[in-house]
Amino acid sequence: MSEPLVIAGRAFRSRLILGTARYPNLQVMLDALEASGTEIVTVAIRRVRPGADGENLYDLLKDRYFILPNTAGCFTARDAILTAHLAREALGTNWIKLEVIGDEETLYPDTEQLLQAAAELVKDGFVVLPYCNDDPVVCKKLEDMGCAAVMPLGAPIGSGMGILNPYNIRLIRQMCTVPVIVDAGVGTASDVAIAMELGCDGVLLNTAVAQARDPVKMARAMRLAVEAGRLAYEAGRIPRRLYAVPSSPMEDRIEI
Amino acid sequence: MSEPLVIAGRAFRSRLILGTARYPNLQVMLDALEASGTEIVTVAIRRVRPGADGENLYDLLKDRYFILPNTAGCFTARDAILTAHLAREALGTNWIKLEVIGDEETLYPDTEQLLQAAAELVKDGFVVLPYCNDDPVVCKKLEDMGCAAVMPLGAPIGSGMGILNPYNIRLIRQMCTVPVIVDAGVGTASDVAIAMELGCDGVLLNTAVAQARDPVKMARAMRLAVEAGRLAYEAGRIPRRLYAVPSSPMEDRIEI
Amino acid sequence: MSEPLVIAGRAFRSRLILGTARYPNLQVMLDALEASGTEIVTVAIRRVRPGADGENLYDLLKDRYFILPNTAGCFTARDAILTAHLAREALGTNWIKLEVIGDEETLYPDTEQLLQAAAELVKDGFVVLPYCNDDPVVCKKLEDMGCAAVMPLGAPIGSGMGILNPYNIRLIRQMCTVPVIVDAGVGTASDVAIAMELGCDGVLLNTAVAQARDPVKMARAMRLAVEAGRLAYEAGRIPRRLYAVPSSPMEDRIEI
Amino acid sequence: MSEPLVIAGRAFRSRLILGTARYPNLQVMLDALEASGTEIVTVAIRRVRPGADGENLYDLLKDRYFILPNTAGCFTARDAILTAHLAREALGTNWIKLEVIGDEETLYPDTEQLLQAAAELVKDGFVVLPYCNDDPVVCKKLEDMGCAAVMPLGAPIGSGMGILNPYNIRLIRQMCTVPVIVDAGVGTASDVAIAMELGCDGVLLNTAVAQARDPVKMARAMRLAVEAGRLAYEAGRIPRRLYAVPSSPMEDRIEI
Repeated sequence: MSEPLVIAGRAFRSRLILGTARYPNLQVMLDALEASGTEIVTVAIRRVRPGADGENLYDLLKDRYFILPNTAGCFTARDAILTAHLAREALGTNWIKLEVIGDEETLYPDTEQLLQAAAELVKDGFVVLPYCNDDPVVCKKLEDMGCAAVMPLGAPIGSGMGILNPYNIRLIRQMCTVPVIVDAGVGTASDVAIAMELGCDGVLLNTAVAQARDPVKMARAMRLAVEAGRLAYEAGRIPRRLYAVPSSPMEDRIEI
Repeated sequence: MSEPLVIAGRAFRSRLILGTARYPNLQVMLDALEASGTEIVTVAIRRVRPGADGENLYDLLKDRYFILPNTAGCFTARDAILTAHLAREALGTNWIKLEVIGDEETLYPDTEQLLQAAAELVKDGFVVLPYCNDDPVVCKKLEDMGCAAVMPLGAPIGSGMGILNPYNIRLIRQMCTVPVIVDAGVGTASDVAIAMELGCDGVLLNTAVAQARDPVKMARAMRLAVEAGRLAYEAGRIPRRLYAVPSSPMEDRIEI
Repeated sequence: MSEPLVIAGRAFRSRLILGTARYPNLQVMLDALEASGTEIVTVAIRRVRPGADGENLYDLLKDRYFILPNTAGCFTARDAILTAHLAREALGTNWIKLEVIGDEETLYPDTEQLLQAAAELVKDGFVVLPYCNDDPVVCKKLEDMGCAAVMPLGAPIGSGMGILNPYNIRLIRQMCTVPVIVDAGVGTASDVAIAMELGCDGVLLNTAVAQARDPVKMARAMRLAVEAGRLAYEAGRIPRRLYAVPSSPMEDRIEI
Repeated sequence: MSEPLVIAGRAFRSRLILGTARYPNLQVMLDALEASGTEIVTVAIRRVRPGADGENLYDLLKDRYFILPNTAGCFTARDAILTAHLAREALGTNWIKLEVIGDEETLYPDTEQLLQAAAELVKDGFVVLPYCNDDPVVCKKLEDMGCAAVMPLGAPIGSGMGILNPYNIRLIRQMCTVPVIVDAGVGTASDVAIAMELGCDGVLLNTAVAQARDPVKMARAMRLAVEAGRLAYEAGRIPRRLYAVPSSPMEDRIEI
């Protein structure tokens, strides 16, 4: 019913992107992904050892989902660029969710390094989706240098605090024309609905589903919430008013 | 998938209750009710003149929906009790959504009159669903006197401000065992999701759908939001944390 | 510099009212009261045993402060009325801070019993200051029956959560002409400033000072906060805007 | 009573810094500065034309206040650096409040350019106080490169929305050791108190005072609010609790 999400010319019916980390086990993850209706899943790239579980994860997912590799755990532009190139070689995709972390505790981005890495990866032909601060100026720069979307955080990764600064998300939506996808901080269904009601084009989440008491049920909740929020955005909500206006005025009563 | 909403022994699959006032026209109302998935609709009772539109409205709805008459526009216990009796006679139902208004501008309830009316109507064999303040003490009293549910307001009727005091709604949920249904104040989908995530059993709304730019689309949004919020509540959300926890730790990476 | 607070024709320079419970010891209490600049202190009335500490407390305070007895711990109108009469006899004051509690855990008021007690005490010649919900309809009723002020709660007593529903406090301020004094829920200085900025005439607090790590320092903070909030209210704040307006436009620069 | 604010080894008794733009007229500005108790005032530097009002402003203020020139209106590192050097020459101070704006509408900083400018100015011997995002990673970088303080924004300049993301301000306070001064976004006294309660060392504001209906009264409010918030921070507030704890327990009552 709603418009599809289009990133770099590619259309997706679902506006939800899910991570693949921190699930109780593989089967729960697969069931949750299925229940969420997502078409895109992100996977972190480990560059150290070849083999084992990681490959299995990729094999399990690659026929069913559009795989979006990410550079989680990279703390410098150089490291992130290298990881992106390895991902392109290994997975045969030029899409990259770009993370350059600036602080081990909060996992907030390092904006300076992120901008450098994004510029170089765009030049190298990548479809770059950068995880960034809720900073309108940085988002505009990322768009201007050719990023395919911007992915501002709602709150620290894994914090579950929702959208701490909805004003900034709204400003980003107004200043950018590429898709705006809230990435990180979401805790529950209403957070997702709020993101969509602010006009965002999608939401990326991981911990909120993977670490819920019942991840599959939460995945279904998130699927419905992203649709509910999008529909509400498109439907045009009533304005907020301090003073009430009666919803059952005299003229609407049943006469008996 | 979720448990049904049970009020006074009667089960409903939908946890959404819709009002019938303030729609652009009758057809939009019917389409919005359909899109919302609701099974219960409230209608205001006009006692003055017999005939005309009100009856038509009732006839239009009665085969498709469970009709819940309300006492909107009553400012005294006496007036509300009389209206409830007239509704029972005319519509053949002993269910009543009890409103006793205390202020013309905000349409806030008159708690004192409400308690009197509720006590008498329960004694008279009604299934009483009172619209009340977000006051845990009043809600407990209403439950103790035999009301079938409590319907605390989220914000003033028609204000669209959402749940102004989620702490009180949570306290009410903890102190009462009858269904808690947030009534009034909802503006958009996320408000509904928040109500359900607080543990409420349902949401009653009217203006947020009827006065949206696209009421039918907003009705669909509300349907999905109530389900999303309920599922999220049942799924058990992650805790909020000030400090982030990484969702893509080293051990979860794909090895390439 | 600001107008005095006038209750029942009596003027007070300080807009802060302090309770006398829960301090680490008597000396800290006296120092905190002094530091707060308050002129009115509330004392709870115990009706059971005569003698001992309570009297000492009263003797310690009565020459320095205007003593406002309260009916803390009363759960019925009858109990509160009796307590008020005993206070009048024992302390020689017809002022009473009226509390009728409806729930042992949250200490929320029992509105029904409160209204009964207030009506009777007003008839009996008391200057009644009722602790009540943040319910504009109840506040208007209390004013209409002759209460000298209304004292809506900001949050549950001792919770330190601040003003949970500023909209209701603002509505109460608009609907009543007697002084509106926020009572209960305040946690820190900014909560007090917010109450005053909403147009309230005063703030009553106890736990926030008595249980602070340094009660005397917190008392000073509260004194300054109530003045700051009042001045800001009177000074007329700038409007909130989503979009920024530069505060250092070109024409204001120093030319060098 | 509180500790002084120490920046770059220089101690100030007041924790409030005021701007000098947008006042109704010069006399109101002077009266407001006096009423605020501030010791530091910022002035924007215009490089274009010599002469006239700007110089008068400087002459009016220089004997009474510590003058902090700022680079308002600069959109590149190069422009800001040049302006800082001109200010040093003209005003004989090596202190600079560094602003590098990234967007004309919101006046949000350009983080990338800001970091470059800050690094160079520190190297050139300036005492640099950068106006920056509420981004803990950027603030830590600014501290590490030798800035004398960090000045994260609470909300867009002139917006009056207060502290939009108190979590980030708290994280900045935890991660940095230099003074943290909230700069921009403050609207009224409680916003200032909140900033101080979060542990900030000071607040810089301009529009909230200059454009208030009564700037001098608002300046007094801000003076008291900054002291109230600081004292409350030092006094150690009570924790927030969902459930109430009675502040007038039985054992504290007066016995009569």
